[in-house]
Amino acid sequence: MVAHTTIGELSESDLLARILPVFAAGKGAGRGVLVPPGDDAAVLATGGSVVVTTDSMVRGMDWRDDWSSGHDVGLKLVAQNVADVAAMGAVPTGLLIALAAAPATSLDWVVDLTDGIAAGAEDAGCPVVGGDLSSAPEGVVIVAVTAFGDLEGRAPVLRSGARPGDVVAVAGSLGWSGAGLALLLAGEAGPSDPRAGSERKAREGSVERARSLVTWFHRSPRPPWEAGPVAAAVGASSMIDLSDGLVRDGGRIAAASGVELALDERVLRETFLAGVVADAVGEDEGWRQVLSGGEEHSLLATFPPGAVPDDPSAPWTVIGEVVEAGAAGPRLTVGGAEPSVTGWDHFAG
Amino acid sequence: MVAHTTIGELSESDLLARILPVFAAGKGAGRGVLVPPGDDAAVLATGGSVVVTTDSMVRGMDWRDDWSSGHDVGLKLVAQNVADVAAMGAVPTGLLIALAAAPATSLDWVVDLTDGIAAGAEDAGCPVVGGDLSSAPEGVVIVAVTAFGDLEGRAPVLRSGARPGDVVAVAGSLGWSGAGLALLLAGEAGPSDPRAGSERKAREGSVERARSLVTWFHRSPRPPWEAGPVAAAVGASSMIDLSDGLVRDGGRIAAASGVELALDERVLRETFLAGVVADAVGEDEGWRQVLSGGEEHSLLATFPPGAVPDDPSAPWTVIGEVVEAGAAGPRLTVGGAEPSVTGWDHFAG
Repeated sequence: MVAHTTIGELSESDLLARILPVFAAGKGAGRGVLVPPGDDAAVLATGGSVVVTTDSMVRGMDWRDDWSSGHDVGLKLVAQNVADVAAMGAVPTGLLIALAAAPATSLDWVVDLTDGIAAGAEDAGCPVVGGDLSSAPEGVVIVAVTAFGDLEGRAPVLRSGARPGDVVAVAGSLGWSGAGLALLLAGEAGPSDPRAGSERKAREGSVERARSLVTWFHRSPRPPWEAGPVAAAVGASSMIDLSDGLVRDGGRIAAASGVELALDERVLRETFLAGVVADAVGEDEGWRQVLSGGEEHSLLATFPPGAVPDDPSAPWTVIGEVVEAGAAGPRLTVGGAEPSVTGWDHFAG
Repeated sequence: MVAHTTIGELSESDLLARILPVFAAGKGAGRGVLVPPGDDAAVLATGGSVVVTTDSMVRGMDWRDDWSSGHDVGLKLVAQNVADVAAMGAVPTGLLIALAAAPATSLDWVVDLTDGIAAGAEDAGCPVVGGDLSSAPEGVVIVAVTAFGDLEGRAPVLRSGARPGDVVAVAGSLGWSGAGLALLLAGEAGPSDPRAGSERKAREGSVERARSLVTWFHRSPRPPWEAGPVAAAVGASSMIDLSDGLVRDGGRIAAASGVELALDERVLRETFLAGVVADAVGEDEGWRQVLSGGEEHSLLATFPPGAVPDDPSAPWTVIGEVVEAGAAGPRLTVGGAEPSVTGWDHFAG
């Protein structure tokens, strides 16, 4: 067995010396960063306002080391924070990283996490502008990311602006992350990466490929965050990042806007269930995941009729319409009825 | 024994319903907040740039429940983040809170933490604009705070601007927090609050009062963050928040600026050691804490001669001068020699 260096064997400054260059090398670094990492705080250029959000991941709760690498966790942290910025209609401009880790945490893992964050940050075009390191109790690793965004003069797209007559559309997948988690929980899929081809994969059938694909979506999602500013620019009336599932998050738009989101069951089944998700987990479980699977980080938005963006690089799928709330009050319906599934709750599970 | 409600017994939305109103009631809320908590992200008004920083506290590492209440932890989190903003010369404009806590965490403790954060935020005049809740493994509570600040048109005050001929000054205490921690570690002082007078306290002598005072400074510091923007306005050449001790953080200014910070031992002893700190922990331990005690969050700055602010509400004490770096390179000296003490390191201890 190889003895790995732990972060407790390094001084804080030695550990920072390993981490900071990874972020400094990012292509996004410097653009709009008036004061870079290394002082008491960073300073970002802004255009009259700044979008701010934070989202954390906890080892053993939000990821398992046997399913996700540090690189996966880093990519996912960036994805979920950038998706929140995008859901306001903003482009990401910077990230802060707060890592609390037990001294026995392997340095290799932290470097892998750092690489994943840096790769995600570069993909999103936003630099890591600072952070914080804390020592944590044995076994504990928690990473909190704060993301900043620039609306570039656009009004922020809130959850409360959906109006009867608008259409409902989604950019990105539905149920893929949840289906991947379901497979991992059932022990029916390993964490192999479908992007890294292998002889074994070549021999596998479509079901196996589907399973690999959805587990990859769970481990390191890459939501179409570019669709957020595009939607804002064309006048999206409301928008939300799908972190807790279509039913729960769509219900939040309905509640905030005082309307009913009437979704089309046929379109949802044909677009998001048929094929990969049904192959991977079957029709019943797949449908449950399309409706309620969490951590997808796709964007759900409403648009005035005819305003849905026609963007081949981040396509929107129309899945329903906004109607007046009836006697049952603001709600989300699928095929005319409220789905019996709900969504993810961090404490009650 | 009373059975306390744990946060695991509540849904995430129920828990948020207990927490959010506390922040919404803060007097700072609304000022400059274009989009308040409740959407994917908050939006803050800015003046062309935004100062951003993050700092975390970990239960068992950064506080002990038998010494610090949730309210103490909340106040301290705000203090250390706002001090970082102030050390850039900015006024605080908003906070984000990321709480990762085990489901068995008592709701009372979380409410107490929330009250402490809200009290600190109100004192600092900046609203809590959002946050994140995560479930954590048994026994774990970690709170990561991100703070935002506005330079109000001033240039940021960096660590790198100290020039030979400048004077070195500090706003706030030196060694009080460290002396308080030393007493708590030695088991020689309880967590009683010197602000809450009692008959017992009235009977205590000056040593006991000193001990209570320094433990209070450790538990819930209130650094003079207002001094930061004032220093920036009068042309401070460099500034830093003293979180890791005078020697270590002053050394950071010396290194970043390529100069020597030559501190006056007599002034340091007379101003910061004599009296409370010496009474509380004795001359030798007190001197060690003045030089190297962490978590003080006072501001250390350099000013052109004659520019030190004369502000009775947040007074600056001149403690030395900036001189050309000699053969030994950039460094901090006290009475002409490099102190043998260093400062706090989060991982190596």
